[in-house]
Amino acid sequence: MKSKIPEATITRLGTYLGFLSEADREENVTISSGEIAEKIGVSPALVRKDLAYFGQFGTRGVGYDVSLLHRQILKILGLNVDWNMTLVGFGNPEIALWLGKDLKKHGFSITSIFDLDPEKIGVTVNEVEVQPINKLEETIRQNGIQIGMIAVPSEVAQDITDRLVKAGIRAIVNFAPILLHVPRYVELHNMNLALGLEVLTFNICERST
Amino acid sequence: MKSKIPEATITRLGTYLGFLSEADREENVTISSGEIAEKIGVSPALVRKDLAYFGQFGTRGVGYDVSLLHRQILKILGLNVDWNMTLVGFGNPEIALWLGKDLKKHGFSITSIFDLDPEKIGVTVNEVEVQPINKLEETIRQNGIQIGMIAVPSEVAQDITDRLVKAGIRAIVNFAPILLHVPRYVELHNMNLALGLEVLTFNICERST
Repeated sequence: MKSKIPEATITRLGTYLGFLSEADREENVTISSGEIAEKIGVSPALVRKDLAYFGQFGTRGVGYDVSLLHRQILKILGLNVDWNMTLVGFGNPEIALWLGKDLKKHGFSITSIFDLDPEKIGVTVNEVEVQPINKLEETIRQNGIQIGMIAVPSEVAQDITDRLVKAGIRAIVNFAPILLHVPRYVELHNMNLALGLEVLTFNICERST
Repeated sequence: MKSKIPEATITRLGTYLGFLSEADREENVTISSGEIAEKIGVSPALVRKDLAYFGQFGTRGVGYDVSLLHRQILKILGLNVDWNMTLVGFGNPEIALWLGKDLKKHGFSITSIFDLDPEKIGVTVNEVEVQPINKLEETIRQNGIQIGMIAVPSEVAQDITDRLVKAGIRAIVNFAPILLHVPRYVELHNMNLALGLEVLTFNICERST
């Protein structure tokens, strides 16, 4: 079943989260929708509408309990648990960057890395060792990994995708410059910058004619 | 006016392009929709449908002239010209990677870089010198830059966006973990991985309940 909640709301919850996790560290007790709105650059009414999808968090005239709201949004987004991810294709420098740091802060850890190139097997990045691709299915099943990131060349991206899906992956982030096909029950997020830019330039040209 | 052509078609044209630019180097004279389809992993009918949006390229029973089709898709996507881009926020390592190499291959060049941190001003990356932010508008106008990439902290991302828009930018790629607001005539493409992942985990949890 596809969610009835607009994707823009989900994305905004993510941005509220960044702000709330900061506020939660400083001992703010309550916060108003107006304060959240100002920080994020949206209207207070929109903040209230976004949060109302998930129940009644605030108290009229008092505002939201920062710590409670923080925990509840984490739970809504499924971020109250850590997510282990697998990365297939270590050669792409676009990806190597994200290893560790930024994602970890959001509760996402890359706990396994695979590559097709024998030369890369055994290399260690952020304490994760690059494994040969024939260990893919076994590792995913044994560790219950649900998110896969694909950064392999286009020619093999669909094949790797099919293997990830069969092994039980439920969401795929795709960095390869190709459109992947996944079953309906698998989530797909495209992160290829060149393809994104080509859509932008097409639209710019289209508007100019 | 928003294009009537589905975004999926535009993205597929980008993937055809990758394949055609390779084929164009090896002296292939013609190519069938079946060959393109097989390479990309879609049906031949879909390839023909995608290309039909833009006119009659192929000859029945002969196929498509590789070189002609290549040039025409470049033109459709607006890639027959080079696109100069500006990058605001040099500190984000997610971005530094893309400088040069990968994007250049697709006709995109980062020709100016700005940062808010005085310590970074004057640093040179791929022959581009990091400039102070007060040169932003002048540089964009003088060089007719149409695409801006934003990789600044969330708190200042909307302000920088507004400045880019005022200076005449027509498309923005956003790496900051925040939703930006732009006028209707400006294209926006979100490239923040953490926010993308949060949408995925929300959907995974939603499906499990």
